[in-house]
Amino acid sequence: MVNFTYQNPTRIEFGRDKEKNIGEYLAAENIKKVLLTYGSDRIKKDGLFDIVISSLEANGIEFVELGGIVSNPVLSKVYEATELAKKHSVDAILSVGGGSVLDSAKAIAAGSLYDGDVWDFFIGKSVIQKALPVFDIITLAATGSEMNTFAVVTNEETKQKFSIASPHLYPKVSVVNPELQKSVSKEYLVYSASDIIAHSIEGYFTASSHPDIIAAYIEANIATVMKTTETLLADPDNYDARGEFAWAATQALNGTTYLGVEGYSFPNHMIEHTLSALFNVPHGAGLSVVMPAWMKWYVSQNEAQFERFAQKLFGLSGAMEGIEALESWFNKVGTPTRLSQLSIKKSDIDLIVENACEHAEAFGLAEMYTKDVLKEILEKAL
Amino acid sequence: MVNFTYQNPTRIEFGRDKEKNIGEYLAAENIKKVLLTYGSDRIKKDGLFDIVISSLEANGIEFVELGGIVSNPVLSKVYEATELAKKHSVDAILSVGGGSVLDSAKAIAAGSLYDGDVWDFFIGKSVIQKALPVFDIITLAATGSEMNTFAVVTNEETKQKFSIASPHLYPKVSVVNPELQKSVSKEYLVYSASDIIAHSIEGYFTASSHPDIIAAYIEANIATVMKTTETLLADPDNYDARGEFAWAATQALNGTTYLGVEGYSFPNHMIEHTLSALFNVPHGAGLSVVMPAWMKWYVSQNEAQFERFAQKLFGLSGAMEGIEALESWFNKVGTPTRLSQLSIKKSDIDLIVENACEHAEAFGLAEMYTKDVLKEILEKAL
Repeated sequence: MVNFTYQNPTRIEFGRDKEKNIGEYLAAENIKKVLLTYGSDRIKKDGLFDIVISSLEANGIEFVELGGIVSNPVLSKVYEATELAKKHSVDAILSVGGGSVLDSAKAIAAGSLYDGDVWDFFIGKSVIQKALPVFDIITLAATGSEMNTFAVVTNEETKQKFSIASPHLYPKVSVVNPELQKSVSKEYLVYSASDIIAHSIEGYFTASSHPDIIAAYIEANIATVMKTTETLLADPDNYDARGEFAWAATQALNGTTYLGVEGYSFPNHMIEHTLSALFNVPHGAGLSVVMPAWMKWYVSQNEAQFERFAQKLFGLSGAMEGIEALESWFNKVGTPTRLSQLSIKKSDIDLIVENACEHAEAFGLAEMYTKDVLKEILEKAL
Repeated sequence: MVNFTYQNPTRIEFGRDKEKNIGEYLAAENIKKVLLTYGSDRIKKDGLFDIVISSLEANGIEFVELGGIVSNPVLSKVYEATELAKKHSVDAILSVGGGSVLDSAKAIAAGSLYDGDVWDFFIGKSVIQKALPVFDIITLAATGSEMNTFAVVTNEETKQKFSIASPHLYPKVSVVNPELQKSVSKEYLVYSASDIIAHSIEGYFTASSHPDIIAAYIEANIATVMKTTETLLADPDNYDARGEFAWAATQALNGTTYLGVEGYSFPNHMIEHTLSALFNVPHGAGLSVVMPAWMKWYVSQNEAQFERFAQKLFGLSGAMEGIEALESWFNKVGTPTRLSQLSIKKSDIDLIVENACEHAEAFGLAEMYTKDVLKEILEKAL
């Protein structure tokens, strides 16, 4: 059990109707003007936008709005929003949407208090020293961004999907209302499940040492995601299942599952970021393709943990049996497990490998994940 | 899943040698003078006191010291310490010891910024509006006080063991170094295990509704405590087991196991506080006597959850089988399960019931836990 420091300052406001208080949450932090960011116009059609605006107005908070943030959010949009935030001298960013909107908000928050190019933070040319406070209403449970320091943005020009992390990026207040998440499509529900499972297994399998208690929390998170995904596919209005799914998403990447864990890495995310950057596939869909392939390649390096995984999650014995059971589960709920399902062909592999090497560098994984290794893993996903 | 707000501002500094930085942690918060509280002189003999003093001095932090805080900490000592804190105008309280020292520190922190009698907070006559910041080095894992808002103190005159809770009482920084906890006696190790299990089962069994994911975290905590207790009885120097035991203690009462949980209460603590207040029994020893008796009385009110408990923790089917397995486990590791082992006689029961009614009032449990009910439960512990 290695030494750690843990402090997570984000306040979670979880449950029904919490979005109606967003103005109060901002006012309590003395915020006078926000940049309100969102994705599609859906929030205008379903009434959420009006609820937010009413609450802002009731609390005397001015706002500037910017919609159009896409999944696999792009750097050009972050630039546009940062300009706007600077021009209007906003005090905070308010993100209303899923993980992509929130990740963009974090980048905008850091960029707004920086004179240089915000991409500097992503390529390690500069370190985030401060950021505007970020508030959010999270409408899709997946990335865990609502209670962590991370943000991932794609530079469309360089085809790099890179991340930043800084304690300055913890959201101040995150609203998690499961009811706001029920309009997600079945497709994106299972992609989200895949993303949460990926956050869970990266450390679980790659760590050189791992407290048992942490492994048990991770297993609880994965079991919850699998069970509630099936419930929600059958009954999208099940509030409790939606709530447990959302909380598992938050817990899977808020730091609690990495405490005392030694020598872990994020190879599945590293490979998937390449797929998203090149082919703009949904992150969770890319992950459910990468995970089984990566597991089959990696299993011999930590067989005992894979055996534990098979036993605890599926009641099976045997390392490979657990991997196959997970792959079958992905197939069953309808998230892809083959590159072909993402319209990626065998002939694309060389291009992917080329790009993945840059991502491996950014993830600190270049030594282990050579071109040959990457090719071997990707071929298992054909 | 009921609505909740969650934010835990405490910073945990976990691991080897972290106590050597206590001066830095204080200095970073601009603390110039502390009241250093502790229990017995053991910390002077084993070198911890010197380590702390060196770190304070190296960071230019003045200190006033007060030792002699006992387990089941008493109000008279809190008064004495509060006087001292006021007289020397300290900026913070630094607790070096177990849960009793830390709970006292929290009461002192609140009392130091209050003109009235600190006991007012315990009896609901006044609400804590502010408190000095509390820092701690926790040398016994049990109460979870290092990451929560609670403090329990006994008023020796009135024989009331009452508690306070306030967001102002979250410790600022808590140092949890498993190595500092290895000198605990085997007796107190198993009492601590009992305390952590009690924190875990109160909500688990009494809640009217309970997210599955939270139940699974609780089961992970209990399983960890049971496993590591056995490891530590055989091998007290096992650092990883000591670390997991410590982290389970922190997690069991830092709020995470009560999120989204509806209608729970703390009847075991309510009854045990009476035993401690009247007979000064160790808290954990009292709890391992109360729990099986309470469970046998309560089981019919939530049989499904008791069946789950039996299955998940012991691989058994049947509600009573789980209760008996827990009782057997307490017997095996050597924490008492009968009042007689605490030198409490059948003829004491009426006195206990009388006092317990006052505690039931304080716990908001007076309606359910009448004299007859309390007597019935206590008789099961004979």
